[in-house]
Amino acid sequence: MAKILVVYYSRTGHTGQMAEEVAVGVRSTGAEADLCEVSSCTLEQLLDYDGIIVGSPTYYGITAGPIKDFFDRSVVHHGKLEGKVGGAFASAGVLGGGSETTVMSIVQMLLVHGMIVQGQARGNHYGVVSIGKPDETAIEECRQLGKRVGKLANKLL
Amino acid sequence: MAKILVVYYSRTGHTGQMAEEVAVGVRSTGAEADLCEVSSCTLEQLLDYDGIIVGSPTYYGITAGPIKDFFDRSVVHHGKLEGKVGGAFASAGVLGGGSETTVMSIVQMLLVHGMIVQGQARGNHYGVVSIGKPDETAIEECRQLGKRVGKLANKLL
Amino acid sequence: MAKILVVYYSRTGHTGQMAEEVAVGVRSTGAEADLCEVSSCTLEQLLDYDGIIVGSPTYYGITAGPIKDFFDRSVVHHGKLEGKVGGAFASAGVLGGGSETTVMSIVQMLLVHGMIVQGQARGNHYGVVSIGKPDETAIEECRQLGKRVGKLANKLL
Amino acid sequence: MAKILVVYYSRTGHTGQMAEEVAVGVRSTGAEADLCEVSSCTLEQLLDYDGIIVGSPTYYGITAGPIKDFFDRSVVHHGKLEGKVGGAFASAGVLGGGSETTVMSIVQMLLVHGMIVQGQARGNHYGVVSIGKPDETAIEECRQLGKRVGKLANKLL
Repeated sequence: MAKILVVYYSRTGHTGQMAEEVAVGVRSTGAEADLCEVSSCTLEQLLDYDGIIVGSPTYYGITAGPIKDFFDRSVVHHGKLEGKVGGAFASAGVLGGGSETTVMSIVQMLLVHGMIVQGQARGNHYGVVSIGKPDETAIEECRQLGKRVGKLANKLL
Repeated sequence: MAKILVVYYSRTGHTGQMAEEVAVGVRSTGAEADLCEVSSCTLEQLLDYDGIIVGSPTYYGITAGPIKDFFDRSVVHHGKLEGKVGGAFASAGVLGGGSETTVMSIVQMLLVHGMIVQGQARGNHYGVVSIGKPDETAIEECRQLGKRVGKLANKLL
Repeated sequence: MAKILVVYYSRTGHTGQMAEEVAVGVRSTGAEADLCEVSSCTLEQLLDYDGIIVGSPTYYGITAGPIKDFFDRSVVHHGKLEGKVGGAFASAGVLGGGSETTVMSIVQMLLVHGMIVQGQARGNHYGVVSIGKPDETAIEECRQLGKRVGKLANKLL
Repeated sequence: MAKILVVYYSRTGHTGQMAEEVAVGVRSTGAEADLCEVSSCTLEQLLDYDGIIVGSPTYYGITAGPIKDFFDRSVVHHGKLEGKVGGAFASAGVLGGGSETTVMSIVQMLLVHGMIVQGQARGNHYGVVSIGKPDETAIEECRQLGKRVGKLANKLL
């Protein structure tokens, strides 16, 4: 079974809670899921997983600085993540506050690494978006994201 | 005082209702506001206004076909819209359903025309996003958008 | 082996030429490739393929109207394209003229359908971008895109 | 006359050279231009200018970490930059390498601050994009960007 890493940055705890639910979704597919707050993730970890899901709060419409800094430093492994499965989620304070563009900024970073991203036809298309504390819909979307990434990574093993 | 055109496409009526509220906001600044459903807008109208605000439902994460077709044909006036003020709004069925990327696709079209777009520090940053039938918050955001465009267009006369 | 459809819109012939080269790349993986100019594509065709690669000229920073219209009408099959592999390419007149945002607008449409998009670590990350008549680099990037989609679709059969 | 700040991050010197040329364009309008490498910019400086133009290399398809970190910290002045004029430029290693999406990521950050961004009908629409060492076209585009921001900021004084 595939191994999935969930990398996140969280200050209020909302993005961290989303990360936990994404992991629940991953595990429901039989894949393994490890979580890692970005300040304690190592760049070497990126190599050890078949899929990487990244979560961030919405700061100025794109991923938060600590996540961006981590990806900038990940250039030491550039090319080695090609073919891994990726996913994205973001929390925001308000509807229309930049959560979708934050998710898309993460999707772009994953694609630049040559990773594989699957959308979803129903609900949250690009990745999960949550406003404030994750409600039932957001929790369900997080699980669906984890499931989607876990299933695809299992299939690609 | 400035003259603002609100161009929109609406099938369910939600985007049309947003257009009306945007016009209310424009008029509160003393600027004139005319509305025009995209199938009845003429390309020549684009030249007659100091500002153009565009609204669309969210179809596949970017502006609807009829709006895109109208902009493609607007190439006959390419360069002549430079310096006009622009704005964008979008309705969607669901949070995370592509409304922000739809607003940004409109912002991109306006920038390619050399137009001027102002964001908003509170609430809906890039343009207005509404989920389903516009609620009180969405209506207030629409008025703020109209006000922002009207004020800036008045100032730039 | 997988079957890949290359859907494109072309007025100057540049995007059409890119489509041919993408197909060459697809076929190098053993997968089948069919081309279809968007005005002659049917919505039913979308169901018959394991991957769909979409090409467009750059008009106002997002995909051309005829491609957008085709995707808007593809809503009749919404949900049925989930899990298919996607790819994007765009031609433009000038560097900085909106070709990358056009590619990303196509990527967004594919993700909304629940499709799977892989980036590339070297060269053109999101999909192929060509300025003017495709040069050698653009032709090679088109083949790489076709190869990437063909290989992934073969693997996911 | 207006005062414009050019904030940039540069490692190879390409983005720094672009910043110099942007400043030349600003000054041609009679406006003042100050440059500041992001590690030596202060958040207070943001308040002292009528326009802020931001330049970044292209790292993983969005603005570099040090620029993102600066904007994240600029939240202490959130709301106070509303109505200021903004602009964006990015250097990249390769065509299709993420330079346009990097420019758009900066445009999004400026819009979230409530700032005003003008596009350009000819050439580089959203902001300046340069591949490798800025060539004559890129230098001219940088000057046009500076001129556009300077003129608009002068007009809005």
